Amino acid sequence: MVRALVRDVGKERAHPAGESVLTTDFSAICDDPEIGVVAELMGGIEPAREHVLALLAAGKPVVTANKQLVAQHGAELFAAAAAAGVQLRFEASVCAAIPVIKVLREALVVTTVHRVLGIVNGTTNFILTEMEGGASLPEALAEAQRLGYAEADPTDDLSGADAAAKMAILATVAFGSRVTLADVDYQGVEDVSPLHVAAARELEMVVRLVGSATLVDDRLDVRVRPAFVDRHHPLAAVEGAFNAVMLQGDAIREITLEGPGAGGIETASAVVADMVSVVGTAANGFLQNDACWRELEALPAGALRSPFYVHLEVDDRPGVLAEVASRFAEHGVSVARLVQAQTAHGAVLHVVVHEAAESAVEGALADIAAPGHLHAPPFLVPVVSDRGVVELGWA
Amino acid sequence: MVRALVRDVGKERAHPAGESVLTTDFSAICDDPEIGVVAELMGGIEPAREHVLALLAAGKPVVTANKQLVAQHGAELFAAAAAAGVQLRFEASVCAAIPVIKVLREALVVTTVHRVLGIVNGTTNFILTEMEGGASLPEALAEAQRLGYAEADPTDDLSGADAAAKMAILATVAFGSRVTLADVDYQGVEDVSPLHVAAARELEMVVRLVGSATLVDDRLDVRVRPAFVDRHHPLAAVEGAFNAVMLQGDAIREITLEGPGAGGIETASAVVADMVSVVGTAANGFLQNDACWRELEALPAGALRSPFYVHLEVDDRPGVLAEVASRFAEHGVSVARLVQAQTAHGAVLHVVVHEAAESAVEGALADIAAPGHLHAPPFLVPVVSDRGVVELGWA
Repeated sequence: MVRALVRDVGKERAHPAGESVLTTDFSAICDDPEIGVVAELMGGIEPAREHVLALLAAGKPVVTANKQLVAQHGAELFAAAAAAGVQLRFEASVCAAIPVIKVLREALVVTTVHRVLGIVNGTTNFILTEMEGGASLPEALAEAQRLGYAEADPTDDLSGADAAAKMAILATVAFGSRVTLADVDYQGVEDVSPLHVAAARELEMVVRLVGSATLVDDRLDVRVRPAFVDRHHPLAAVEGAFNAVMLQGDAIREITLEGPGAGGIETASAVVADMVSVVGTAANGFLQNDACWRELEALPAGALRSPFYVHLEVDDRPGVLAEVASRFAEHGVSVARLVQAQTAHGAVLHVVVHEAAESAVEGALADIAAPGHLHAPPFLVPVVSDRGVVELGWA
Repeated sequence: MVRALVRDVGKERAHPAGESVLTTDFSAICDDPEIGVVAELMGGIEPAREHVLALLAAGKPVVTANKQLVAQHGAELFAAAAAAGVQLRFEASVCAAIPVIKVLREALVVTTVHRVLGIVNGTTNFILTEMEGGASLPEALAEAQRLGYAEADPTDDLSGADAAAKMAILATVAFGSRVTLADVDYQGVEDVSPLHVAAARELEMVVRLVGSATLVDDRLDVRVRPAFVDRHHPLAAVEGAFNAVMLQGDAIREITLEGPGAGGIETASAVVADMVSVVGTAANGFLQNDACWRELEALPAGALRSPFYVHLEVDDRPGVLAEVASRFAEHGVSVARLVQAQTAHGAVLHVVVHEAAESAVEGALADIAAPGHLHAPPFLVPVVSDRGVVELGWA
């Protein structure tokens, strides 16, 4: 028995369904004992959430591509699936056909993953790649919209909200602990200017919107930030609308999965593969048990350590550079590179600092800003690099 | 019941086994009904092959990390597993912890994969990356040996034989058809010189040892070759001893998996994950059925189409460039770039040709070599690029 729940049975369709497949009656699916697995592709929270809960309670395995549903209500759904003893799979909810959920839950089942780094929004990655070619943010966005990589309303992409939802799901699965969209601290690409892209190039880096989920002493930090990524880092090679997720763990060092993170046929491939996995493991699905099996505390705000890049627009007068260096030193932040460049209206300082707590860097920046010599708010981004920052050259 | 088959029970071990775990008697494992899954980690063909066959016949699922066993006898083992209705998993036999087997067999189960491109030998990738920094092949090899990336006898790595065994396994799984080591046409890095590495850089490319498995009209081509890889191609970003495998298919476009392709703890992680997958799907393992479920013909030698780079050392006299161009044209091979450079002993021609059958390029090269004006055999490698070759610049 095959059935599909639709709003309008009579609507003309490019690929008409077989007789009596289409129905507007949810109970015709939920109550039919001949239906063994259901794919939820309706999107949105309600009625998708209540339908999935009803299906799980009825003993039917569910496959979903619904990112917002899993990011906001994953723990509730996983618990319902575990209680009913049926599988809930959601590969297509993150990065379409890139099989990061299966890899985390099955291939890396005996590895402690302590960090997930991801380029999980194709729209912003396309925009940032275009900006490397000289485009401004509005120009790059217009091109993304022309090519269909961005919606007419690109707010959720540009703000980082879309990436944050995906990072919530990835963090949940990687760490086995409930992380919802509300737990993810995100910042988008709105403030990235051609100046920053050029500064990154000088450092042999590229600007990417990077989601990170990090486990530090069993405490969690999940965020999305524009970041400077070393040209030799695997994430720097991710260009255009592609996505990539890097998984770091004790036994595997790092494994990176890259591919198209969106698209109808790509998403369908992931949904059907999940359905096949359900059927192929129907009798014993313990690999698909509750994804939230432990409670983890959040890392305090500002505690996450990273190297950083800071862009400062300052008065062009003697002593500014020394003042800035002193403020960082007072906060225990070690400066790896400090380059001053002249502009028409003053000077620009490019500062790369060694690994430090974000709060220490922010403290130094607050002291630097206090006397009123900054012409613009500081631009602060993490640096993603496998190499020591000291080795980085400035052309 | 846990048992481990060893050669010498009395040998001193860093991590001593529990009491009565070690045995020299294979039947103590094969005939014990309490043993539910067995990992084969002995290496080599015999007695590993006969032990695995005996275990499968006894109804025990087997997990193996044995690359040569699967590459040379995979079809026999898969058939034995299918006949006995038990699982045979072999993730660790290719690229250690990079979960390419699980991804191909489960996540991409509904996608027709038509091409696999892989950097599957870390030793040669380390050597080629070192050569980009100016090292010669012997210098790079010595450094690889110093760091433990290359064996004292590196023959199987340098010749491409190790990569060929891995490509045989990947082709078998990707296409569901038996491909053994003997079916793989391989060439290693022995002939790659600093001149070729420099030429690649001029083309904004890098030299990589690339394994390819290609399905053309249901016919197979599996090979390993040094290749020029466009700097923007995901495989170009694979540096040092890392491995990467790109899977191209109709529904997924391309998915690339990258990570450490060797290492004890990485391999152990893959073996134990396979054992967990066996237990987690014990009652219904159809996802792990016979990996060779169809027969595919081999593509005729020389029929595979690709763009190519050719390096020619020629007499420095008028008309040579025109002659070379004419020979390519006579064989229907379209030249994208042809650059002549002077050397102390004559001239070097760098030729990049558009996609053509390898046999056509080889035919042109035979005609070019016939008059005796070549100072060295031609160096011919495929070009790996997502972009049209015409767009490539020559600095």
